[in-house]
Amino acid sequence: MGIVVQKYGGSSVADATGIKRVAQRIVATRKAGNDVVVVVSAMGDTTDELRDLAEQVTPLPPPRELDMLLTAGERISMALLAMAIAQLGHRAQSFTGSQAGVITDSAHGRAKIIDITPGRIENAIRAGAIAIVAGFQGVSQDTKDVTTLGRGASDTTAVALAAALGAEVCEIYSDVDGVFTADPRIVPTARKLHRVSTEEMLEMAACGAKILHLRCVEYARRYDMPVHVRSSFSQKEGTWIIPTAEGEEMEQAIIAGVAHDRSEAKITVVGVPDKVGEAARIFEALAAAEVNLDMVVQNVSAAATGLTDISFTLPREDGQTAMGALARIRDEVGYDKLLYDDQIGKVSLVGAGMRSHPGITARFFAGLASAGVNIEMISTSEIRISVIVDEAQINDAVQATHTAFELDASEVEAVVYGGTGR
Amino acid sequence: MGIVVQKYGGSSVADATGIKRVAQRIVATRKAGNDVVVVVSAMGDTTDELRDLAEQVTPLPPPRELDMLLTAGERISMALLAMAIAQLGHRAQSFTGSQAGVITDSAHGRAKIIDITPGRIENAIRAGAIAIVAGFQGVSQDTKDVTTLGRGASDTTAVALAAALGAEVCEIYSDVDGVFTADPRIVPTARKLHRVSTEEMLEMAACGAKILHLRCVEYARRYDMPVHVRSSFSQKEGTWIIPTAEGEEMEQAIIAGVAHDRSEAKITVVGVPDKVGEAARIFEALAAAEVNLDMVVQNVSAAATGLTDISFTLPREDGQTAMGALARIRDEVGYDKLLYDDQIGKVSLVGAGMRSHPGITARFFAGLASAGVNIEMISTSEIRISVIVDEAQINDAVQATHTAFELDASEVEAVVYGGTGR
Repeated sequence: MGIVVQKYGGSSVADATGIKRVAQRIVATRKAGNDVVVVVSAMGDTTDELRDLAEQVTPLPPPRELDMLLTAGERISMALLAMAIAQLGHRAQSFTGSQAGVITDSAHGRAKIIDITPGRIENAIRAGAIAIVAGFQGVSQDTKDVTTLGRGASDTTAVALAAALGAEVCEIYSDVDGVFTADPRIVPTARKLHRVSTEEMLEMAACGAKILHLRCVEYARRYDMPVHVRSSFSQKEGTWIIPTAEGEEMEQAIIAGVAHDRSEAKITVVGVPDKVGEAARIFEALAAAEVNLDMVVQNVSAAATGLTDISFTLPREDGQTAMGALARIRDEVGYDKLLYDDQIGKVSLVGAGMRSHPGITARFFAGLASAGVNIEMISTSEIRISVIVDEAQINDAVQATHTAFELDASEVEAVVYGGTGR
Repeated sequence: MGIVVQKYGGSSVADATGIKRVAQRIVATRKAGNDVVVVVSAMGDTTDELRDLAEQVTPLPPPRELDMLLTAGERISMALLAMAIAQLGHRAQSFTGSQAGVITDSAHGRAKIIDITPGRIENAIRAGAIAIVAGFQGVSQDTKDVTTLGRGASDTTAVALAAALGAEVCEIYSDVDGVFTADPRIVPTARKLHRVSTEEMLEMAACGAKILHLRCVEYARRYDMPVHVRSSFSQKEGTWIIPTAEGEEMEQAIIAGVAHDRSEAKITVVGVPDKVGEAARIFEALAAAEVNLDMVVQNVSAAATGLTDISFTLPREDGQTAMGALARIRDEVGYDKLLYDDQIGKVSLVGAGMRSHPGITARFFAGLASAGVNIEMISTSEIRISVIVDEAQINDAVQATHTAFELDASEVEAVVYGGTGR
């Protein structure tokens, strides 16, 4: 009997009805002969409601206490899910992150998993029970305090736990049928991918595809864990995310899909003296302020002026911090001015087949041109091309690219079953 | 610097405003030079709402999972309270029952505290922080599972923790100003008691006074912990519950107060053969069914018939269980019939001074007679007299007794600040 780890998101367990439906699914997997370990998120909007409560008390909650508060969410959903399974005549036991042995560092609110010691989970399975584990949470190695892993990190809990338990598969359930070639809300003819490699999925997650958390895919790749992304509202097969051993290429399409991201802003430092070390000072200042950069572009300096412009993109939420850090080094660096633009978006084309197929870039840019989309910045990896465009043109850019690569399905495949969230 | 343990009930922390008010009170105690440890209940009706959720999922939740669910309530309130204290510029750390070292047996839903090992609390105090502890919950010694101590048991957590920490006092905050000579909703002229002995308080709690949980008073007596019952909505001095060493009588009033209880029912077993062992069989059957009896009365047997009647009172919630257990032994015992009456109530007069003052019973019964109240059953202890009366006459009985012992205040003293609950 193999171990199956299943993860259910908040929209799948939003109310008692949802919890009972999920319980039936879990019991069916158990009856099919598997040992089942379930990772569950907080019900519906519970986490946001708890954040609101904290905000009513203080604008700056201490991170340790915020983690203590938020972890109440999964505690509620996991206990209710265990009850629903018991009601169906099967044994179930719920475990907090701490009880499940999810050991993390002490970075409250964005803790990283250091180790998983799932002794209690293994005992529960051995005793014939279904184990229900709280996603998103752990316990710090040093202080034994409750930690959270950051928004959307229940996926990461599931894959890490699956790896620690030597599971056969980690199934990630949400309210969509799998991974699509583009966001079906923008491209109604988007096609469901039957399988995609972890490296492609990594690029898609990094480029704004919200179906899976980036760290979760990193874990899947590191531990060679097959992940099956599917809907808890249907019985359809979803998308398999398959780790590919190096050199052993999967038979696959050239392009996996088109991702987009509306969460970035662009900053341009205008008129930087083109001397050795000036750019370094700028990026040192940004690193010291803990700003995460994405794309970086430096114009060729105009020989006449000896000045150059440096542009980079970053999460919008880091915008103020970055502008402040740059303003403080203006005299030192001696640049001319700062430009801030958050009316931008990123469109990315991802596909492992790109490596062996030349001409992809030309076809991508021709598609964008035909839709009248202007490219502001470009960045590439071995299996990805990303462009920054005007935010108002994102939908056009995604659609044009999807069509240019003949990704459209002959009929609409995507169904969104639950709410808008996970 | 002494340690003060403060316990705040659900009505005191029902919303963000309440939590901030309580935080100010805690900080004021800290500023007065005390180390402060706070025990907190779940916000307002949270526990009931969580029970409702469980009921939507299953009529019979597994007790382990119900405890896991319910403990989310204090997790939320304690984290918010720690945040509110931090917002006032003081350090605070919240701790679950498990983290606070509240070790219990494994009886989920009604676990008993076996030991308290408050190492983390002591460390937090030593580091200058205010410790916030979840009431009502602990961790089982054998299985390391989360347990709850039963309804209203946050008071017990507070007193037990105060004893373990060697605190100077345990302050129990609710929405009333203290312990009154009768329920002010029935007797508007009830007087606040300034001090009452633990043994009197024990009798009052056992007789239905809801101000303090019975087990909490037992702990206070066992560990000689002074308890100060007061309101979180006012600055008034409340009621001190003082442990009295044996033989060292406090100067005190003859009567502490009049308690009443509407939660009992009466069962009469009619026509029991008056032979050795028949009564024993009845009470063995009830004990096997885990029915908690209160008063028991056996009529003198009528010599002519050789039959006797046995009446007893019990919690109404045990009524069906008891009737079932008795029905099953009918042939064996050979009684005539069973009568069930849940239209009864208990009125109790409590006072340590009773011991040295004869005539109390006569005055009590005369008071009841003057109000036209018929006595159905009587039971006494050294410092208490209880009678069972018709439920419809409880208010009359309490008022008449209160007046008969000249307990009425010259003006209304009782103010209820919050909701109806604790």
